[in-house]
Amino acid sequence: MPELRKDPLMGRWVIIATERATRPSDFKHPIENANGDTHNCPFCSGNEAKTPPEILAYREPGLEKDKPGWWVRVVPNKYPALQIEGAIDRQGDGMYDRMSGLGAHEVIIETPDHGELISHMEQKRVEDILWAYRDRVLDLKKDPRMQFIIIFKNHGAAAGASLFHPHSQLIATPMVPIRVKHEMAGAKTYYDYKERCVFCDILREEASTKQRIVAENDDFMAFEPYASRFPFETWIIPKIHAAHFEDISKHQVADLAQILKKSLAQIHRVLQNPPYNYIIHTSPLREVELPHYHWHIEIMPKLTHVAGFEWGTGFYINPTPPELAAKYLIEG
Amino acid sequence: MPELRKDPLMGRWVIIATERATRPSDFKHPIENANGDTHNCPFCSGNEAKTPPEILAYREPGLEKDKPGWWVRVVPNKYPALQIEGAIDRQGDGMYDRMSGLGAHEVIIETPDHGELISHMEQKRVEDILWAYRDRVLDLKKDPRMQFIIIFKNHGAAAGASLFHPHSQLIATPMVPIRVKHEMAGAKTYYDYKERCVFCDILREEASTKQRIVAENDDFMAFEPYASRFPFETWIIPKIHAAHFEDISKHQVADLAQILKKSLAQIHRVLQNPPYNYIIHTSPLREVELPHYHWHIEIMPKLTHVAGFEWGTGFYINPTPPELAAKYLIEG
Repeated sequence: MPELRKDPLMGRWVIIATERATRPSDFKHPIENANGDTHNCPFCSGNEAKTPPEILAYREPGLEKDKPGWWVRVVPNKYPALQIEGAIDRQGDGMYDRMSGLGAHEVIIETPDHGELISHMEQKRVEDILWAYRDRVLDLKKDPRMQFIIIFKNHGAAAGASLFHPHSQLIATPMVPIRVKHEMAGAKTYYDYKERCVFCDILREEASTKQRIVAENDDFMAFEPYASRFPFETWIIPKIHAAHFEDISKHQVADLAQILKKSLAQIHRVLQNPPYNYIIHTSPLREVELPHYHWHIEIMPKLTHVAGFEWGTGFYINPTPPELAAKYLIEG
Repeated sequence: MPELRKDPLMGRWVIIATERATRPSDFKHPIENANGDTHNCPFCSGNEAKTPPEILAYREPGLEKDKPGWWVRVVPNKYPALQIEGAIDRQGDGMYDRMSGLGAHEVIIETPDHGELISHMEQKRVEDILWAYRDRVLDLKKDPRMQFIIIFKNHGAAAGASLFHPHSQLIATPMVPIRVKHEMAGAKTYYDYKERCVFCDILREEASTKQRIVAENDDFMAFEPYASRFPFETWIIPKIHAAHFEDISKHQVADLAQILKKSLAQIHRVLQNPPYNYIIHTSPLREVELPHYHWHIEIMPKLTHVAGFEWGTGFYINPTPPELAAKYLIEG
């Protein structure tokens, strides 16, 4: 079982893979099946036996599980960062603290087709990826051991993808991660001072200046944040205040699918299919509907390397002002 | 002048390069002069005219400035992230906050020789790199506008280096960066509870278990931290409590040169010259000798990609337990 270890200085948890330990010679992985080798791709339709049994799939009624005919399929990660079996076993280790690597790690296979991207998919299909995200969160939320769920996508080797076939991932953790705590605390600090949600204020500010908006519909706004860390960083925010992603309405799912598809298509076109990550930022599972927190998606193209300065300070150096990035994305 | 913008949520500052804005087509930089093209390398001996005039150099007495004969040379960064001229001009920008990009950005050229690495240099020469670091900190500390100085090295393209010739960098900032504030706060929390410095405790713990130590001498210990974020992450800590790097003694400089050289040589050998960053973690300039903070160096080989999970949670997934990494480094 993987082990969670806590850094006594920063309070951050690290997942140490104690079982399949990587040796010095193991670090040169090219991305798998990037050559269009659909025969060996575990996520391609027809290769369902190459993954653990599915947790969820959307397929034509009457068809068999773990067989073709699906268009979204969720499976456990074959090499999970955290494992669903077992108890939370917290203990000391000399002066340090560790616990068992409990949690969940699932893969959302976005399409049966090896080369199909969200940016180029039919909108209904993107909606179903979002429904699958939500269904999985609602199911895992029932497990009282889970405190937080992160849904993210790594696209391209430089963004950390190890398989080519389009997929997202979900990881449920038995504690609220430090980065999430900092974000919640930052939002709370703003709320305590202003008595308004910082994200609601950002929505109003961006709507008024219009300099950084790249897409918009009834329910969502996509924009380049004022203090973008990365060139072409894009955030998608629901216009109505809501703390939890999983409370999304049917109408919002349709609008989110539309704007996510459009934002990714802009980035794909202007930057020529760059590596990127997107992450759903949402409230911890056990929180009520917080007035100060507002769920959203952050898309981060990986065009620059994070270097010593960023690691050491938490500052970022962004060579492309967000106003300029917005211009390229709209006009590109 | 670059602009500093504050993220209203996380409180983190971002440096936006407003003048030399990067366009979508500008992101494919190979590392410069990696092919051994010493003729065009601005850091090679003989090419001193290709850099701004030097701030500091160690050279044989009697020789001219900005000419060959030096073995360590410090110059302003030609494309500085922050600029030394001007005042701190803090202002609002709608709901947001920004300030002028004031600070200092210097390059420490570690050797006149294009291909010479710290790991393979004579120890005396490494000592002089460390003396140059210290000399520059002491000089910039006199400038009351500066609050923090970070010294770091990016080695290899994946670690963010844009020039091949061995060099480190120094950036002075007009505020204490958020990452440093978190580290100081974490150290303070531990101290408040235990009434002992967390780093001094780590030194004792590591000396007692011996599982993670990779090098040691009179003044320093090098080890793989218990909650290593990255495979083969290595920290070098002075054995005597000290909050500020710049207070280093002559004897410590010699011992630090020895252990830094040795640690980098271990990593070079076992991982075959991997990309890496090292960062000097030290107290903010205006702090007194803090009982809870202990300066140190963190070396982070770049063998894995930081992906969506890490970005979203602040967790890390490390596939190589530090005990195993230590074994490889010692025996490799």
